[in-house]
Amino acid sequence: MTGSRTLTGIGSTPRTGVGTARWYRSAADLALPERPDPATVDPETERDRFASAREAAREGIRRARDRAAERVGEEEAAVFDAHEAFLDDPGLVDDVEGDIDDGTPAEHAVDDRFADAIERFEGMDGRMAERADDLRDVRDRLLRALLDAPAAADLSALPAGTVLLADRLTPSDTAELDPSAVAGIATVAGGRTSHAAIIARSLSIPAVVGVGEPLREVPDGAEVLVDGEAGEVVVDPDEDRRSAALAGEEASVVPEPVSTADGRPIEVAANVGSAAELPPAIDRGADGVGLFRTEFLFLDRESPPDETEQYEAVVAALEAFPKDRIVVRTLDVGGDKRVPYLDLPEEPNPFLGRRGIRLSLEEHADLFETQLRALLRAAARGGGGDGDRDRGGDGDAGDLAVMFPMVSRVEEVDAALDRVESVAADLADEGAAYAVPELGAMIETPAASYMADALAGRLDFLSVGTNDLAGYVMAADRENDGVADYHDPLHPAVLRAIDRTTRGAEETDAWVGMCGEMAGDPALTELLVGLGLDELSMSAVTVPAVKTRVREVDAAAARDLAEAALACETRAEVRDVLSLDG
Amino acid sequence: MTGSRTLTGIGSTPRTGVGTARWYRSAADLALPERPDPATVDPETERDRFASAREAAREGIRRARDRAAERVGEEEAAVFDAHEAFLDDPGLVDDVEGDIDDGTPAEHAVDDRFADAIERFEGMDGRMAERADDLRDVRDRLLRALLDAPAAADLSALPAGTVLLADRLTPSDTAELDPSAVAGIATVAGGRTSHAAIIARSLSIPAVVGVGEPLREVPDGAEVLVDGEAGEVVVDPDEDRRSAALAGEEASVVPEPVSTADGRPIEVAANVGSAAELPPAIDRGADGVGLFRTEFLFLDRESPPDETEQYEAVVAALEAFPKDRIVVRTLDVGGDKRVPYLDLPEEPNPFLGRRGIRLSLEEHADLFETQLRALLRAAARGGGGDGDRDRGGDGDAGDLAVMFPMVSRVEEVDAALDRVESVAADLADEGAAYAVPELGAMIETPAASYMADALAGRLDFLSVGTNDLAGYVMAADRENDGVADYHDPLHPAVLRAIDRTTRGAEETDAWVGMCGEMAGDPALTELLVGLGLDELSMSAVTVPAVKTRVREVDAAAARDLAEAALACETRAEVRDVLSLDG
Repeated sequence: MTGSRTLTGIGSTPRTGVGTARWYRSAADLALPERPDPATVDPETERDRFASAREAAREGIRRARDRAAERVGEEEAAVFDAHEAFLDDPGLVDDVEGDIDDGTPAEHAVDDRFADAIERFEGMDGRMAERADDLRDVRDRLLRALLDAPAAADLSALPAGTVLLADRLTPSDTAELDPSAVAGIATVAGGRTSHAAIIARSLSIPAVVGVGEPLREVPDGAEVLVDGEAGEVVVDPDEDRRSAALAGEEASVVPEPVSTADGRPIEVAANVGSAAELPPAIDRGADGVGLFRTEFLFLDRESPPDETEQYEAVVAALEAFPKDRIVVRTLDVGGDKRVPYLDLPEEPNPFLGRRGIRLSLEEHADLFETQLRALLRAAARGGGGDGDRDRGGDGDAGDLAVMFPMVSRVEEVDAALDRVESVAADLADEGAAYAVPELGAMIETPAASYMADALAGRLDFLSVGTNDLAGYVMAADRENDGVADYHDPLHPAVLRAIDRTTRGAEETDAWVGMCGEMAGDPALTELLVGLGLDELSMSAVTVPAVKTRVREVDAAAARDLAEAALACETRAEVRDVLSLDG
Repeated sequence: MTGSRTLTGIGSTPRTGVGTARWYRSAADLALPERPDPATVDPETERDRFASAREAAREGIRRARDRAAERVGEEEAAVFDAHEAFLDDPGLVDDVEGDIDDGTPAEHAVDDRFADAIERFEGMDGRMAERADDLRDVRDRLLRALLDAPAAADLSALPAGTVLLADRLTPSDTAELDPSAVAGIATVAGGRTSHAAIIARSLSIPAVVGVGEPLREVPDGAEVLVDGEAGEVVVDPDEDRRSAALAGEEASVVPEPVSTADGRPIEVAANVGSAAELPPAIDRGADGVGLFRTEFLFLDRESPPDETEQYEAVVAALEAFPKDRIVVRTLDVGGDKRVPYLDLPEEPNPFLGRRGIRLSLEEHADLFETQLRALLRAAARGGGGDGDRDRGGDGDAGDLAVMFPMVSRVEEVDAALDRVESVAADLADEGAAYAVPELGAMIETPAASYMADALAGRLDFLSVGTNDLAGYVMAADRENDGVADYHDPLHPAVLRAIDRTTRGAEETDAWVGMCGEMAGDPALTELLVGLGLDELSMSAVTVPAVKTRVREVDAAAARDLAEAALACETRAEVRDVLSLDG
């Protein structure tokens, strides 16, 4: 026996890492000065201090947002917009200023009023409760500014092999992290859907959250193993556990393409939201990129990127995966994804409004043309597609494929193909090197599922976006906690929409992929193989587990399983067929 | 030859009426005083006058809203909310107050600034252009208040047999109309989707809009025939035209149930949004009510109606149609339908949030129970359903059927059936007379179309709500003009969702109806018969035309037509198959 101790929490990134513990103390540990006699407080001075602190916090938030957008992608960066909104929340601001007017110094007023608000959020259910983390983050920024405290320990300059321990990590903290230096993360508080957990997962950093008070006993400098699969934090791990874990971690990566036990090849690719996510995708053995989001190129700037910048970003991705396919999604804004300079309309139901290809074909026709030019030129650098399905590519970089988001009418695809043709003609006229990539459509709307046969007849591939598809099929906004039970892809209606899609493509040469969250859950791999998907694209971190699972699956048995799931009438029946709990 | 003259416009209610012309002059004809020297204007006084006028206009708008809700139903009344919003539009209010501060009297400032805004709206496309009518309405109210002008001619006390002529009718004007006194309406301006046209249609008043300048030549007191089918206004019609039109009008009503030429019975029922719409439904020969909206019972009041009030409203409908079925939809609020005292959540995408049955099973479980109690008691008064499909009923009133809105999960229907069972048990315990009516689900979500087989297996009927179904299938808010081209039920994806619904019910005993706008278009009747619908429910005014069309249709040929439409890939192909223009 060694002195090894095991603490348990919630595994949030299913990887294992070992390193040296280093505690991170948040601003919550800052000591506030004693409360003075209210009569001695000058409200005007305190109001000015509060105003300056808000501006300092706002600058910090915007910087963190830019960093996060660059490092982990736009979707995760969006949390900072929520932070800025808290900073301007009229209720909170009024409360703090009211206290100040009653003779409370700014730092105490902030501390008190944010404590109330944090408590209210914590009293709510589910994801609302996790908004408390955001409030803490904003409070910490304000307190640091008011107390003139040094910035948090520089998380961007940690020594390699650090296991970061903390009460909780705020999104701002996590955005600072240099993923190559951090071997693991463990926190006292936080849940699986806390922003910190989500960001750690997208950076593929082993993480266990919600370990509770026992974590506080772990001293700085201890050797710690973080097992995000088992949800365990092992202090002073014995050699067996240590080497088993690291060997498992190593062995779990399957660098080569995989097939089912009975020989059906399934491509297992990564979703990538920024250039920073390419290295973890390679590291985890992804067969290329099944969803390359291009929004990150458009965000946190004053004007759209030009053709050269877009060309270079795509070529970099092709070069990162010289033997694999990169599926680039054309600009997908609108809905909940806002870009200030694009002047998107305010709509009462933005998810049912102008977004994705709808904007690209009309308001944003110029942007679309520039993007297509960049993509057709990049395709010449890669193998190009032009309808052939050769995965190897013929150039010195992998194959490029391009797909259109939010397709709901065959007419849109016809129009988009016209644009591609006209861009190709322009490039030919100019004597520029170009190739027409493989072309596809996202299947996110119910209409697209019903029209899959017609879409597949015109295109090289379809890619099911299960997050939006589930939302639209069930008529349930996935951002709305009040209908959380509805937007679950395991409702039989969603499975039937996926089945309609794969069956629609059956009579054609088109392949069908999936790039929603569902694709990354190894517990669903057999079902998805059975539903006829040819490609699954997911967070890099789940690639090894899904590849491993694909190899175990028998495609014929998987079809039987899928048939059984499709015959179900309720989600509970589906879960039962899949032998899932609850 | 007589002196008869024919003017042409846009037929908006396909009926014919004859009567005596009476011009209605709007506030736009009010003479403004001359503009005084700005130096003599006291901005403070003018600001006060403007504020008082806004409050007077607000009161008038709210009264008109209540009247419209009572007479023509809640959906049409909602336009007055838009009016109130214009009254509070910060841009408009600031502009007017700015002019006042520069020395313009309030009435000129209102007239100028509203003229600018009206012009801007008129420069836009389609339905946005018709918002100009709303602005005119609000401007007229403000000017009447500022000029202390008498209220508009009392439209609620017109002599019987009036044909109302006007430049245009604002929604406020139309809401005042006593439909029994008005033989027809003709306007100089306005389009088919102007609010006035919509309200005239829902009250079944013959109407032709957009006749243009020639209408102004028609003198007060002339005899005028309004043919809303042909889009003609005939001044001093000759006896032949007059009697042909009125005979046609009389003959067009088909009071008895109809079948296709080859003998398939199709029920042609009316959509009813308030008690006031029952008499026109009887008058136009509807086979009962295919959609009885219950929202009108809940609106424009401080608290929900009690069980007795709901019971009486439903019994009144059953008694109005002693031989026919009344399909009552349980409370369908949420989405764009707000009821202040129900405390609905604010949601970023309300159409994808908590609405319809979702609320009835949770937040509004009490209201749902009260409504079910009223309905089960009313079913005892009618024939009751309990699964039998006998249209005749056995009591002294017709059969009652009840359907649930916004179903997206089979689980919801199971839960609703549990509630019905428990309410029945309570009523039995109390010794109350009750019966279990026929029970059904609206098919409005894509999920419901995909699960139609399971839903039909549990229920007596399904009813396709094409307005919402088209919106959800196409992921396009039908209130959003920016996606107007998307939410069209003639997109092949929507037809396929309808087909999936009728095919899902094929193996069961359940009948399938349709109660969206699509059902009332005689140009689509053959297609809908071919798609397998058993019942079509629509605005009362279109019942005669659809009944006539049903008798001409051959069900076998209709199926071929439907197959051809289902094989289409674009809306243009569908329109081509149906021989529709454009």
